[in-house]
Amino acid sequence: MAGASVRPVPILKDELDIVIPTIRNLDFLEMWRPFFQPYHLIIVQDGDPSKTIKVPEGFDYELYNRNDINRILGPKASCISFKDSACRCFGYMVSKKKYIFTIDDDCFVAKDPSGKEINALEQHIKNLLSPSSPFFFNTLYDPYREGADFVRGYPFSLREGAPTAVSHGLWLNIPDYDAPTQLVKPHERNTRYVDAVLSIPKGTLFPMCGMNLAFNRELIGPAMYFGLMGDGQPIGRYDDMWAGWCMKVICDHLGLGVKTGLPYIWHSKASNPFVNLKKEYNGIFWQEEIIPFFQAATLPKECTSVQKCYIELSKQVKAKLGKVDPYFSKLADAMVTWIEAWDELNDSPVSNPAKQPNGPAK
Amino acid sequence: MAGASVRPVPILKDELDIVIPTIRNLDFLEMWRPFFQPYHLIIVQDGDPSKTIKVPEGFDYELYNRNDINRILGPKASCISFKDSACRCFGYMVSKKKYIFTIDDDCFVAKDPSGKEINALEQHIKNLLSPSSPFFFNTLYDPYREGADFVRGYPFSLREGAPTAVSHGLWLNIPDYDAPTQLVKPHERNTRYVDAVLSIPKGTLFPMCGMNLAFNRELIGPAMYFGLMGDGQPIGRYDDMWAGWCMKVICDHLGLGVKTGLPYIWHSKASNPFVNLKKEYNGIFWQEEIIPFFQAATLPKECTSVQKCYIELSKQVKAKLGKVDPYFSKLADAMVTWIEAWDELNDSPVSNPAKQPNGPAK
Repeated sequence: MAGASVRPVPILKDELDIVIPTIRNLDFLEMWRPFFQPYHLIIVQDGDPSKTIKVPEGFDYELYNRNDINRILGPKASCISFKDSACRCFGYMVSKKKYIFTIDDDCFVAKDPSGKEINALEQHIKNLLSPSSPFFFNTLYDPYREGADFVRGYPFSLREGAPTAVSHGLWLNIPDYDAPTQLVKPHERNTRYVDAVLSIPKGTLFPMCGMNLAFNRELIGPAMYFGLMGDGQPIGRYDDMWAGWCMKVICDHLGLGVKTGLPYIWHSKASNPFVNLKKEYNGIFWQEEIIPFFQAATLPKECTSVQKCYIELSKQVKAKLGKVDPYFSKLADAMVTWIEAWDELNDSPVSNPAKQPNGPAK
Repeated sequence: MAGASVRPVPILKDELDIVIPTIRNLDFLEMWRPFFQPYHLIIVQDGDPSKTIKVPEGFDYELYNRNDINRILGPKASCISFKDSACRCFGYMVSKKKYIFTIDDDCFVAKDPSGKEINALEQHIKNLLSPSSPFFFNTLYDPYREGADFVRGYPFSLREGAPTAVSHGLWLNIPDYDAPTQLVKPHERNTRYVDAVLSIPKGTLFPMCGMNLAFNRELIGPAMYFGLMGDGQPIGRYDDMWAGWCMKVICDHLGLGVKTGLPYIWHSKASNPFVNLKKEYNGIFWQEEIIPFFQAATLPKECTSVQKCYIELSKQVKAKLGKVDPYFSKLADAMVTWIEAWDELNDSPVSNPAKQPNGPAK
């Protein structure tokens, strides 16, 4: 069984940051204490910057509010969303670690069928540290897991797999449904624990949810931009989707792997479907054109870095999705700004005076 | 939970045949009696036709041995393998039913984690009667299962899905490993019950195992040719793989779906890895060229039926894989013979005098 352990060993303790977007006190961390306390947290405070977010004692964290984001990024802060959990990607940018785990503050520790508490972070790390198998489907799921392997008929040349860039975890209790499905099935709960991790095949897109997500920042970080959502934008709740589609096209191009499945977290409460519908309705139309766009997108072989891929993708977004709505031209510009800001903060991390977190530094 | 039930209702009783290739008495059917007895069996006897295969009392079956195959197909019998379980595809051809379930005679009833016996056939039928979702990946697995749905970000236009052509079941206990993996991991057993059914995405190939497999014969039957294997051929144990690769390319072209996952059967014994290596070694080399061939294969839009697709694929096999080994030219010819034989037996089923099974007819 994956995940659960009584006294977790904090693997990659100095190589991973936990990014949490929030508008409230972080009491939810109490339940995660045995698993998260050894790690460093990056808290991105959304909404009113004058509000004080309480973090339980004993956690090592830095906290950024909107004023911090504006001060650190200057005019480039325009690429970071406000009043939407999309703001979390600012945390990816200011991290200096190799790995990121991001989780919503309404997500709690889930239990596996044996009743053991699931160490979600440990499972994400396992997923990220073992290869993916995106080039051919393995019917016994992740061939790198204990007790599993490649089945008969799996080409030997493909068994080395690909480096894993992203680990997408799932949710027990409240499933990640869109507003129309929430409205139609208000009582549906996810009770099925599927004991599997699998690679999303090359060329296949999926809906990436940001609630319980880990990635290798060195391999794919600059593609993890959560877009322009929320305040002043015609759309919300598509931040993680947008990142997932861009990221997957780039992973496929660069030969990187994406896994989904374990670990589960316990998603405690359904968000308001009426509010969600208001945020989502443009996206519900637009995704009908966005998906075929990304399914057809190809990147030239000159795109050898995530940044180059992302800039190229922004051009294609402007050229092809700009016709769908002027919003996409603005988004394409923000994609470029995001990369500029990323490079500014990450190319010379030591000498960069901009990085002045206002929480207790690590 | 899927699968198990105490008194199974025999769904599709008159629309499904169970095809079993064998060289021995079918004592294994005793364990399956509660699930299989209402259905009609087609037994394809491999090896010495003078041997008598005992079938437990009370089963409704027809049985074909090599003499029957030769008599029914005449010169076209050359396309049916001998001394290899590939001979099972003869059963697909002589069936007149809409659905086929095929199972090996060393496969027994498995139990789910609650200890209930799994009605594998019932789960296959559920899989076949609900759509697939091959055009976009759903992270909560089969969205048509009870308690599940499409997640946020899944385009609404794709939620109708595709008709399901194939349901690929899995195995507890002895996993379906190739000879090298068997040799390296002689003691590995599959103990992980993964409670999931999922669609293999469009454009993705997988290793289809014939041990526990169901399909819609009307939708995909003519593509389910298990090739030339065994006696007189330079290869064995690639029969189901070959069918799976051809079938998947054709399903992708015709907009049909393929599911894998539940149901599990209990695979009782590992075959001899040394014998397997002898059968497989050519395949181990060849699959390195076969997979890229099928990954790149496209069918012209004129191919509007499975038969047309299959004939076109046979031409591409001859042209492109013929260079790998002369075996593939022979196989390409056999693919054409298979389709000719299929059409002969299936275009005018009532008036066809060739169909004279020697078992008790239904």
